[in-house]
Amino acid sequence: MADINGENRATASSLTPRLTAAGRPATVSVDAVNEHGAVIPTRIPGEHPLTLYLDKREIVTLMTLGAAPEALVLGYLRNQRLVSRLEDIAAVQVDWETDSAAVTTRNGNADVEKRLERRTITSGCGQGTMFGDLMESLDEVALPDDGRLDAATLATLLDNVRRQDSIYKEAGAVHGCALAAADGEILMFVEDVGRHNAVDAIAGQMWLKNMDGGNKIFYTTGRLTSEMVIKTAQMGIPFMVSRSGLTEMGHAIARKIGLTVIGRATGKHYLLFTGQHRFRNDSV
Amino acid sequence: MADINGENRATASSLTPRLTAAGRPATVSVDAVNEHGAVIPTRIPGEHPLTLYLDKREIVTLMTLGAAPEALVLGYLRNQRLVSRLEDIAAVQVDWETDSAAVTTRNGNADVEKRLERRTITSGCGQGTMFGDLMESLDEVALPDDGRLDAATLATLLDNVRRQDSIYKEAGAVHGCALAAADGEILMFVEDVGRHNAVDAIAGQMWLKNMDGGNKIFYTTGRLTSEMVIKTAQMGIPFMVSRSGLTEMGHAIARKIGLTVIGRATGKHYLLFTGQHRFRNDSV
Repeated sequence: MADINGENRATASSLTPRLTAAGRPATVSVDAVNEHGAVIPTRIPGEHPLTLYLDKREIVTLMTLGAAPEALVLGYLRNQRLVSRLEDIAAVQVDWETDSAAVTTRNGNADVEKRLERRTITSGCGQGTMFGDLMESLDEVALPDDGRLDAATLATLLDNVRRQDSIYKEAGAVHGCALAAADGEILMFVEDVGRHNAVDAIAGQMWLKNMDGGNKIFYTTGRLTSEMVIKTAQMGIPFMVSRSGLTEMGHAIARKIGLTVIGRATGKHYLLFTGQHRFRNDSV
Repeated sequence: MADINGENRATASSLTPRLTAAGRPATVSVDAVNEHGAVIPTRIPGEHPLTLYLDKREIVTLMTLGAAPEALVLGYLRNQRLVSRLEDIAAVQVDWETDSAAVTTRNGNADVEKRLERRTITSGCGQGTMFGDLMESLDEVALPDDGRLDAATLATLLDNVRRQDSIYKEAGAVHGCALAAADGEILMFVEDVGRHNAVDAIAGQMWLKNMDGGNKIFYTTGRLTSEMVIKTAQMGIPFMVSRSGLTEMGHAIARKIGLTVIGRATGKHYLLFTGQHRFRNDSV
């Protein structure tokens, strides 16, 4: 069946992974003392370790807000290219009693052992490896060139982000990512204490919904480093928008693969860095 | 010899590691198009892969601005507890032709193999492991309780940070960390594309200067997640100040070890979250 965004949702079948629904409350309240000496109850975001086991093999511990743990785990496996197809996953069981996410594949972990042999797991924030491997994967990426984004739609997207209910507004200390349709409507919005967790959770949700990135816009509050650019390209999304700036390598990779990157997008201002052929500004 | 901060600098001897001095330019200029259709030359921060080899064994690839690569590598090894003492390191050779940092120990890597066996390397941004190991290390941390920070000194520190020349002001998209003396004077200031790289580079410089953290203040522009709190405690620093907020686990760990954490510190406002016994506000 096709949903409102024209996507084919994965139908519930024996090939859809069984998932827990173990999202946790996003914030807690603690007391802090302000500059006037007053005690201020202050909401802060949750942060919890979640250790990922793939067919009982420990892979990584993610520090997460915990709002969408199953999607996070799926997106992590997808973006790290540890599992190639959603159909290969039989179940994702998140258990906060043991802070664990147990992923069971249909065919065992022979492939995983081979993949892990070749590299160290990557990470967010520029500390990890897998860089060479990720760069190689870019040769397989072909972003569609027919999509267009105009300045008015960008303004709509930014306004939608601004009006989005968010943990950030309530508690700060999180990064947010949004997946938007070509008209700027927000389809998914995920926040996490790590900006890489947020984008991985979006990738996981897209996988579950069998959603194509080709006609989408990816928005993030975070900086556009090389890994963020690579992940957006891996999801097949041609448009990337951020409130923040981008780095030299983010810029170089985006230019190489023809990704349309718009940074410093706040209110009426923005900077179009790369992929200008997909952007239109009728007001100039 | 003692320097102006009363620290004992490591004297140049056969036990001081040989270091390259391979810092690179911090920013480059690229063209971007703004909302008026004008082409704006825009400075963006450098980002470069740096693969760390410890006695020829590949450990990790750090994505870094590259301004202080030798200190970054030393601090990474220190904070990941892969090398226990600076004296164990004979040389750090950074070579941007091959994007590599070759670290040679005096006693070979037998210990390293054992340490790596026990865990996956951690990372910044909540994607990594080593969490259990880091938590264990906290039992060894004893932060001194005699230091005091008053509101006026905090204001001085924040003003010093504001007036600091920075890549952030020029190009954005980086995080900064500062190590300050008890009077709020900035002793070291490091920026990097990853906030964990910035704190690791501070740790490396402190190691090289044989500097004690007990009478220092650590400032970061970034969020105070569990790993940032743990690293500050590992450096033996009792005061942690950030422009941003902190997470639930950052709060829990800081409270457990008695670290004084001040968040949302901008201009005249701040929130004192934990370790209130070291803070004094005479104006209330």
